[in-house]
Amino acid sequence: MSPRIVELRRGVLEKNDQIAASLRDRFGTAGVRVANWVSSPGTGKTALLERLLVRAQQQGVRAAVLVGDCATDNDARRLAATGAPVRQIVTEGMCHLEADMVTSHIDALEAGGTHLAGLDLLVLENVGNLVCPTSYDLGEGLRVALLSVTEGEDKPLKYPALFASADVVVLTKVDIAEAVEFDSAAAASAIAAVAPGRPVVATSARTGVGVAELLSLLVGPGQPGP
Amino acid sequence: MSPRIVELRRGVLEKNDQIAASLRDRFGTAGVRVANWVSSPGTGKTALLERLLVRAQQQGVRAAVLVGDCATDNDARRLAATGAPVRQIVTEGMCHLEADMVTSHIDALEAGGTHLAGLDLLVLENVGNLVCPTSYDLGEGLRVALLSVTEGEDKPLKYPALFASADVVVLTKVDIAEAVEFDSAAAASAIAAVAPGRPVVATSARTGVGVAELLSLLVGPGQPGP
Repeated sequence: MSPRIVELRRGVLEKNDQIAASLRDRFGTAGVRVANWVSSPGTGKTALLERLLVRAQQQGVRAAVLVGDCATDNDARRLAATGAPVRQIVTEGMCHLEADMVTSHIDALEAGGTHLAGLDLLVLENVGNLVCPTSYDLGEGLRVALLSVTEGEDKPLKYPALFASADVVVLTKVDIAEAVEFDSAAAASAIAAVAPGRPVVATSARTGVGVAELLSLLVGPGQPGP
Repeated sequence: MSPRIVELRRGVLEKNDQIAASLRDRFGTAGVRVANWVSSPGTGKTALLERLLVRAQQQGVRAAVLVGDCATDNDARRLAATGAPVRQIVTEGMCHLEADMVTSHIDALEAGGTHLAGLDLLVLENVGNLVCPTSYDLGEGLRVALLSVTEGEDKPLKYPALFASADVVVLTKVDIAEAVEFDSAAAASAIAAVAPGRPVVATSARTGVGVAELLSLLVGPGQPGP
């Protein structure tokens, strides 16, 4: 990149960081836990979220979602079927969410009657991309990096910036691990190399395995409900 | 994006287009067919390429690969095991290949004794990303968009820019289509909506299905060998 582009990009990131800091204050004041979910396209973020939202309702955890995509509102429609408050952020070709998009969609959520203070959990489902979202703080408390068993065990080594910045690593589609000859030891070793000590949750949206554990990690020990 | 960023980005793309035009001339003069492979991380580009390179050797098709990744040379090492000339382009965090990277690595390939004029096929395996590589012409003759059966049938609708710009669409991992409940009619309809009339090749790196058909599409009717 040219020095001019690098400098301007730094400016964009600094402005994003300022907006993200305001968001973080706002989330803290409202007492809502916020998780930023980042993965490849096709890792199964939306399918897992469907399952997580149903589980949240069963446990009395009040959860909402902002979901980013370059185009279509397919994911918002899928997630809204769970009954949870959901808004689609269409980025119109941009490959990541930025803090100002989150701010304006939270304003819209609140204008529609869903107040942050009435939520326990807000999930920001980022655009499917393992690189660009890494640089953009969205004010989240937890960054979640997701990796499916179909993607190749060395993804954490190839995309170290994301995995190193993650607070939680989630394996998805573990129900087909055997069918795709997933090498769980190799994956664990790749994760440990770039994100040592981070909790790793093995999940399947199809069977529901790991969903309760993930919800408990996201909402924390003080979670409401039974 | 701010107007300043948009304007500078346009400048970067224009400069990239100029370099890509030189590359296209160079490829034409050398008589080598060049394919730019774009997909999500984990779609299985490298596994399919391993299979394709072996098949190429069997048919007497002389093929080489430049493979892009943010970090690691894992893929180049995997591909080099086939005996084909391979170079790893490490983008150091950048989420796509640019024409100038391709130029310098082709220079290095030729300096190492692998001349473009001695090749039938050059594959540029892009960084795993469905958004950013779309804007960067690499001088290729064919753009190949790949989609695995594990990724969700609506990916072409969510990432229309890539699929609309592709000359060939490749489905990967079709051997596990049933295990992941892949809906091939829904995928075909999503592809047809954004890339009408484009050839779609169903492949499996595990079973080898579709590899010969793909090679023939890439190298064209005038391909050498039996």
